[in-house]
Amino acid sequence: MAGSPRRSAGRRLQLPLLCLLLQGATAILFAVFVRYNRETDAALWHWGNHSDADNEFYFRYPSFQDVHVMIFVGFGFLMVFLQRYGFGSVGFTFLLAAFALQWSTLIQGFFHSFSGGYILVGVESMINADFCAGAVLISFGAILGKTGPVQLLLMALLEVVLFGLNEFVLLSLLEVKDAGGSMTIHTFGAYFGLILSRVLYRPQLEKSKHRQGSVYHSDLFAMIGTIFLWIFWPSFNSAPTALGDGQHRTALNTYYSLTASTLSTFALSALVGGDGRLDMVHVQNAALAGGVIVGTSAEMMLTPFGALAAGFLAGAISTLGYKFLTPILESKLKVQDTCGVHNLHGMPGVLGALLGVLVAGLATHEAYGDGLESVFPLIAEGQRSATSQAVHQLFGLFVTLTFASVGGGLGGLLLRLPILDSPPDAQCYEDQIYWEVPGEHELLAQGSEETETQA
Amino acid sequence: MAGSPRRSAGRRLQLPLLCLLLQGATAILFAVFVRYNRETDAALWHWGNHSDADNEFYFRYPSFQDVHVMIFVGFGFLMVFLQRYGFGSVGFTFLLAAFALQWSTLIQGFFHSFSGGYILVGVESMINADFCAGAVLISFGAILGKTGPVQLLLMALLEVVLFGLNEFVLLSLLEVKDAGGSMTIHTFGAYFGLILSRVLYRPQLEKSKHRQGSVYHSDLFAMIGTIFLWIFWPSFNSAPTALGDGQHRTALNTYYSLTASTLSTFALSALVGGDGRLDMVHVQNAALAGGVIVGTSAEMMLTPFGALAAGFLAGAISTLGYKFLTPILESKLKVQDTCGVHNLHGMPGVLGALLGVLVAGLATHEAYGDGLESVFPLIAEGQRSATSQAVHQLFGLFVTLTFASVGGGLGGLLLRLPILDSPPDAQCYEDQIYWEVPGEHELLAQGSEETETQA
Amino acid sequence: MAGSPRRSAGRRLQLPLLCLLLQGATAILFAVFVRYNRETDAALWHWGNHSDADNEFYFRYPSFQDVHVMIFVGFGFLMVFLQRYGFGSVGFTFLLAAFALQWSTLIQGFFHSFSGGYILVGVESMINADFCAGAVLISFGAILGKTGPVQLLLMALLEVVLFGLNEFVLLSLLEVKDAGGSMTIHTFGAYFGLILSRVLYRPQLEKSKHRQGSVYHSDLFAMIGTIFLWIFWPSFNSAPTALGDGQHRTALNTYYSLTASTLSTFALSALVGGDGRLDMVHVQNAALAGGVIVGTSAEMMLTPFGALAAGFLAGAISTLGYKFLTPILESKLKVQDTCGVHNLHGMPGVLGALLGVLVAGLATHEAYGDGLESVFPLIAEGQRSATSQAVHQLFGLFVTLTFASVGGGLGGLLLRLPILDSPPDAQCYEDQIYWEVPGEHELLAQGSEETETQA
Repeated sequence: MAGSPRRSAGRRLQLPLLCLLLQGATAILFAVFVRYNRETDAALWHWGNHSDADNEFYFRYPSFQDVHVMIFVGFGFLMVFLQRYGFGSVGFTFLLAAFALQWSTLIQGFFHSFSGGYILVGVESMINADFCAGAVLISFGAILGKTGPVQLLLMALLEVVLFGLNEFVLLSLLEVKDAGGSMTIHTFGAYFGLILSRVLYRPQLEKSKHRQGSVYHSDLFAMIGTIFLWIFWPSFNSAPTALGDGQHRTALNTYYSLTASTLSTFALSALVGGDGRLDMVHVQNAALAGGVIVGTSAEMMLTPFGALAAGFLAGAISTLGYKFLTPILESKLKVQDTCGVHNLHGMPGVLGALLGVLVAGLATHEAYGDGLESVFPLIAEGQRSATSQAVHQLFGLFVTLTFASVGGGLGGLLLRLPILDSPPDAQCYEDQIYWEVPGEHELLAQGSEETETQA
Repeated sequence: MAGSPRRSAGRRLQLPLLCLLLQGATAILFAVFVRYNRETDAALWHWGNHSDADNEFYFRYPSFQDVHVMIFVGFGFLMVFLQRYGFGSVGFTFLLAAFALQWSTLIQGFFHSFSGGYILVGVESMINADFCAGAVLISFGAILGKTGPVQLLLMALLEVVLFGLNEFVLLSLLEVKDAGGSMTIHTFGAYFGLILSRVLYRPQLEKSKHRQGSVYHSDLFAMIGTIFLWIFWPSFNSAPTALGDGQHRTALNTYYSLTASTLSTFALSALVGGDGRLDMVHVQNAALAGGVIVGTSAEMMLTPFGALAAGFLAGAISTLGYKFLTPILESKLKVQDTCGVHNLHGMPGVLGALLGVLVAGLATHEAYGDGLESVFPLIAEGQRSATSQAVHQLFGLFVTLTFASVGGGLGGLLLRLPILDSPPDAQCYEDQIYWEVPGEHELLAQGSEETETQA
Repeated sequence: MAGSPRRSAGRRLQLPLLCLLLQGATAILFAVFVRYNRETDAALWHWGNHSDADNEFYFRYPSFQDVHVMIFVGFGFLMVFLQRYGFGSVGFTFLLAAFALQWSTLIQGFFHSFSGGYILVGVESMINADFCAGAVLISFGAILGKTGPVQLLLMALLEVVLFGLNEFVLLSLLEVKDAGGSMTIHTFGAYFGLILSRVLYRPQLEKSKHRQGSVYHSDLFAMIGTIFLWIFWPSFNSAPTALGDGQHRTALNTYYSLTASTLSTFALSALVGGDGRLDMVHVQNAALAGGVIVGTSAEMMLTPFGALAAGFLAGAISTLGYKFLTPILESKLKVQDTCGVHNLHGMPGVLGALLGVLVAGLATHEAYGDGLESVFPLIAEGQRSATSQAVHQLFGLFVTLTFASVGGGLGGLLLRLPILDSPPDAQCYEDQIYWEVPGEHELLAQGSEETETQA
């Protein structure tokens, strides 16, 4: 404990008071605004003539649970790779996401399901709130280990609002398609976090360099996160799409894309690795890029081949990004990206948006038949040409990058407030500053320091 | 191995013989009594005119699988926090739950689905059996590390019977509502285990004190349990409710409640922690209390705000219980509660029962409309007023506490039989007495003992 | 790193080039042959008059996701028990399965869903591909730690073809029933791997003996695999069966069988263990044999008692196999079976096939009613007697054993090609040869070597 100085009472009280304040505020807003929707309200559901089997619950709840696993187990454990930041990774994921679910229920509710003065909630609002939490956790990945929980909650407070606004502009005003969130979740979350990390740049971060790596078992814990993300990504992309062939095709395309990103990740990782060795960082992250890159287009008639090709590209670019781009981002652009979210979410997200532009632009009545109404209603109704839809999709990407950049900049300024409890440079990537850590950990830590001294 | 003395042949044979005996007995009872129900029998299902889509399987099996994950992964890994009892935690969970599933299929079957001389089984009996196993595992949590597998199986043998009886009294005789089991599962399991632990009180337990804590990686394994419990709790509470809006609303309320208990847990943990540090014990456990406290009321018209408020209260009380009440329970009341089940299941379970009293008492025809029939059939049919239902709910809590206390006392007397293979005080919380443990563990153990000597 | 010699450039390039070649080849074949089926194609689905709720997605996707968890988390982590091969276990599982999914989509597609010159894909092809990947991973278990990733990919290339051919002969030509794959998956995968391991026999493998065991935390990681396999096995066996009572009954039977194999595993493990101690190897593996043994018969009218009895037998035989047969297999038959797949998949698979023979032979119109058409269509239509069906089932087992043996032999010859990058005897069960391993691992390794020297 010698290494971690005591914090002042003012700093120690920030987390409890902020949690209580945020919870109090959302509770009041829930009391005023949030009501059961037709599918969750006893009186409303039983009014009218329909079968219980028609309840949206049976079409979307299994997908919701898969998404829920991704948010809490997937993101949480993926970040446990850091040798001394496992509690912070999985614990702050838990805290951040729990708050984001409440807060985004309100924000997204105002934008998407506000009716008669009330926000109406059901399984779709649960899925949407989890999606928004996903974006917050992507941003968290960029600043992992370099920020305290109070800073993280404030980031979520801001980011959820901007996420909701950006999503509203894209889905409701521009009417672009982005079921799996290549733009709204991955691009937005990544660039928000990267700009924020840039503003929080720590020139002295090498003081904590020895804690930035993994240890053997922390890499295995991280693989729990990776594998659950990989498995359930088909459910993620398909959770909010049109029912029937829409959900079915989206899941299938995502499944194929992920198998291809896995193969290209292994290929590239061995190709660029020292002595042909595979790198766990690539396997843990780049293999997932296939899910990101089809986030926009998986619900479209991408074709199985298209899914494979997209996934292959995503895994390859992501792996090369970890190997060659991340060091440059830090040294040249002063962006310290702990988890490499630029490689897993940033570049594949932008590519996914562009792939969506391409596939939307190729949409024809012949390929979609009467299903065109579900995927591209404006084209089906003759209000837009496929080309026009493609242009709108492209514009959606620019809007997203703008919201993310401005938001990340604002977030960075907010998180730099000197009053906020932030870890010193020498205590980054270290659980002890925010967590009671059982004794063995210190012993192991001492042990590895001794070893480093010897080496 | 030096530290663990050899057991006599009589003790060594207890576990194999008891397993064989119990398995033989349940197999015979299955042969005599258990039959496929209308939904699982080839002939019965195909007799009559209905669609395969109507089969209960499609409405309940996804929820069942979520519950199944909670029982085996959730409870199993949650208890792995102990540094030298990981095999026992996850292994005995596995054994106990596997037996409890068979045994409770019989016991609950006699009480709930006995027809024409046969117990009829399908997905609902699977869910109910898993629920009963949950109660057994809650009791296991109170005595974790202080009992051998033979004692645990005998406890399950008794507890399953009393669980079934208590459940029958509540659900069938008193006709109270308790879908997620605030009373039948959490209150019953917790107080059964606590009384049992009281009867098994070990005054010399400090001999094993050094093994009662966690190590860094054991805390991360425990978080696997926590997170899977947290994620799937909405499925747990909604698995047995009425279809349609009932399942949907129950899942939604539970989801909100859990987000609030997470925030209050982090707030209180940091508030009462040394130097403002968060405690993994609180995060692993108290954050789940939001699922327990809405176990009775989540299927009712609790309102989203009500769910948040209940969850907040549960997380706060549970965290404070871990900090202040658990030490007093041990020192004053001689209840040694290894996992703190009083904080996670006991108090939140009782509060959940009381919340059920309140929400049932507030039920109106206006709020539930025609859905009142699904939630409170007796009120809908005019046989009971809401107040009367509330009184019945309250009486159900007292019945549960009575069954749990008497059962726990009987269980304790049974488990104190001197013939039973029980770990000595100096070998509690230690895998080596019941498990082949690979070499490294001894080395680590030696290492930490040396360290303790040095300190 | 001193211990792992550098590989030549030719060897280092094998993995990247093979991955790229395989991915390129499958992508081209996908482009030429693979198309959306009626349920995933926008135009085809919306042509005609049916409800979105009728889409196969809602009947099979939740089961598919459970199977998907089993393949990647279940198999992947089950093999992490080796102390220094965690990256290889979970990483090569990931790579192998990702390739097998693509390749078996093509192979199985040619055999089972080839129509109008195209392979038509949807959720059923996803389930089937995952099943085939399961067989490949079973074979992987036999040679775990003794082969490089290039060898493994070549094995998958061959095995998927033979799997598809064997499955085609059984299901389409012989018209035997084998929903959960006692024959097509478990028997085939196990004996393919065992014969292959025999051909790859390494007389000097004791050089790596000290790495063949587990350490404390690797055993806990392995239990993650075990428990997820155990939980979701009911979904595995029921994923491809007839809808309605078929899926429902299959899941129920598997659930009961697994509870019984768990009890018999604990009983036998304690009975044969030193000083009555339980062995993690048994619990991790033999407890799962209940899922294997009902792979053929779970969809039939096995009865709940039949499921218990079968599971009990499987757990017992599997445990005894680990204790007594595995050492003999290695010393007498020169079959080095790293994970003991003969005990978990081989013997229980053959027993499962024979149980299928028995239960099929006992099928009557009375027991199945109009459901006979779903389970045994040829008997229902009068084209076969129950006895004839039983004989066909038995013949299916012999076909499977033949395909597996010949295939495993061919596979072994292929993998012995001297050009292939294979680990030397002294580097088996060791991650460092194929993976960048973080520093702590080397320290631990040194530590345990020192300890061994001292001992």
